[in-house]
Amino acid sequence: MIKNDLFLRALKGETVDRPPVWMMRQAGRYLPEFMEIRKKYDFFTRCRTPELASEITVQPIRRFGMDAAILFSDILVIPQAMNIEVEMKPNFGPYLPNPVRDQKGVDKVVNPDVYEELGYVMDAIKATKEKLNDEVPLIGFAGSPWTILCYVVEGQGSKNFAKAKEFCFTNPVAAHQLLQKITDTTIAYLKAKVKAGVNAVQVFDSWGGMLSPTDYQEFSWQYINQIIQALKNDAPVIAFGKGCWFALQEMAKSGASALGVDWTCTARNARYLSGGQITLQGNFDPSRLLSPPEEIKKMVHQMINEFGKDKYIVNLGHGILPNIPVENAKAFIDAVKSYKVEG
Amino acid sequence: MIKNDLFLRALKGETVDRPPVWMMRQAGRYLPEFMEIRKKYDFFTRCRTPELASEITVQPIRRFGMDAAILFSDILVIPQAMNIEVEMKPNFGPYLPNPVRDQKGVDKVVNPDVYEELGYVMDAIKATKEKLNDEVPLIGFAGSPWTILCYVVEGQGSKNFAKAKEFCFTNPVAAHQLLQKITDTTIAYLKAKVKAGVNAVQVFDSWGGMLSPTDYQEFSWQYINQIIQALKNDAPVIAFGKGCWFALQEMAKSGASALGVDWTCTARNARYLSGGQITLQGNFDPSRLLSPPEEIKKMVHQMINEFGKDKYIVNLGHGILPNIPVENAKAFIDAVKSYKVEG
Repeated sequence: MIKNDLFLRALKGETVDRPPVWMMRQAGRYLPEFMEIRKKYDFFTRCRTPELASEITVQPIRRFGMDAAILFSDILVIPQAMNIEVEMKPNFGPYLPNPVRDQKGVDKVVNPDVYEELGYVMDAIKATKEKLNDEVPLIGFAGSPWTILCYVVEGQGSKNFAKAKEFCFTNPVAAHQLLQKITDTTIAYLKAKVKAGVNAVQVFDSWGGMLSPTDYQEFSWQYINQIIQALKNDAPVIAFGKGCWFALQEMAKSGASALGVDWTCTARNARYLSGGQITLQGNFDPSRLLSPPEEIKKMVHQMINEFGKDKYIVNLGHGILPNIPVENAKAFIDAVKSYKVEG
Repeated sequence: MIKNDLFLRALKGETVDRPPVWMMRQAGRYLPEFMEIRKKYDFFTRCRTPELASEITVQPIRRFGMDAAILFSDILVIPQAMNIEVEMKPNFGPYLPNPVRDQKGVDKVVNPDVYEELGYVMDAIKATKEKLNDEVPLIGFAGSPWTILCYVVEGQGSKNFAKAKEFCFTNPVAAHQLLQKITDTTIAYLKAKVKAGVNAVQVFDSWGGMLSPTDYQEFSWQYINQIIQALKNDAPVIAFGKGCWFALQEMAKSGASALGVDWTCTARNARYLSGGQITLQGNFDPSRLLSPPEEIKKMVHQMINEFGKDKYIVNLGHGILPNIPVENAKAFIDAVKSYKVEG
């Protein structure tokens, strides 16, 4: 049904002529057409208005022709739907005025009806599917429960999420209750997204790499794994853990269709640590998109040679940065499309 | 000559009854006696006054009896001595009002006479050696050239040092000139420190883990390696790279006496990646010092069992946090001292 199914075939591990490509945060601030919309509408208006969210989602596809679209939204719509106030402050980022830091706070967190609280996301998916016209698949996403907890407890972004870790290490019972609530809502949310039309889902564990391997199992992986088990028969699941190289072996056994890796993991290490069978996604350093376009092309071709063209989805190792020139983003996408197996 | 030479013996790889222990940033804000001094004197006064720096250095030794002292100072005394203005803003951290971001900025950076510009450090070492009275060894330290560049270019702390990476990736010629200047000054500085009396040196590469393995070789490791080659016949060198698990194999070949690892690397991975022969130092998650003291004791004993008592120096995986209760820090040190090999 999807005309360009390269991305879905890579998720199945099928042999392809070239790997598919998309970029985390590809609908975002480096795009002039996004900045036009951003001038007029604040962050949550953009998320909550299907016409805007769908337009933003397809902007990079129109301009660059990636092999997959990812719905414009934010991981923090989940805590927002769970009775936690979330603001997006300009030049600051997410701000949660009433962070959860004790049992009482956890008790106030609710598991909502996702259609009631997050119906606008399902409407945005339907609007996007219409605009995409089955040209490329659409990805839906959620944050990992641990990453959501980081913001919910810390109240804002942080270098080391010391307050979030303090909460988990001094009040593990309440922390696990909170993580389970987030997990349950996330599962219902992602299932609804699949029903609304997304062709694959990605779980972003942006801050899993701040935990030791033992703590990662306890506070992050077991909840991501619940999500994968609940979703894997509905749609392909991609698990991306920034800094989570140490968990790739375990992650590969979960039934996820692909694992995302960041740029600190060489292709060789990533293949070795993940067991060599699962599809991998990544891992160009987003800052390296500041190199000249010719150099980007060379580095992308080398990266594909190292990962191999099969069981591989070309991506960045984290979200694209706002200061990347459009022609450099284009060079990244074009480099994948011009890739030819040597010999 | 040094009465408690456990730390120096571990650096040589000798068999010991228990591993030595110290904590990165052990002279710092979690200590009430440090906070007393901090009330009266600003940051650089504390660094520049040998009586204060030496007093702060020995405070944790008196209280907890670690197996090594580390001179109270800061990695940013190096750029300060190189004609770059460095302020330490309360509740903000380092601030460099004139960050280096182009060739002209690099040209203004000078290689000073380290005795002239940093003589106060040598005086602090002599004052500390007197106070320590050869009870335990004294460690001197420097930041890695890449980590210093991060601050010098960014102008302050950062989550991803995007400006520092942008500078390196768009102006590599100027970046390498800057890195070489920092390297040359650091070598002269550490050699002077050894002459003044430190028994070992540690190079802190706090931000090496933000680079891909290829970029790490180019922008960080080759300069750390120059420092190790220049220093290794003068004193044992410890190389600590936060997030640099991917480079442990190469680092182990350098002639460094020990490698520091952070808490994302299990003992097993750290031993495997570093080749199993070199002394390792680490790697307790600083946030885990918020666990109850009894739990800390258990986790420390498990950590020693996993690393093995030999070729091992117990430490945190990064600096101790300001909010750690004194009794928890004590539990960490005491757990090492009470360690007995089982069986």
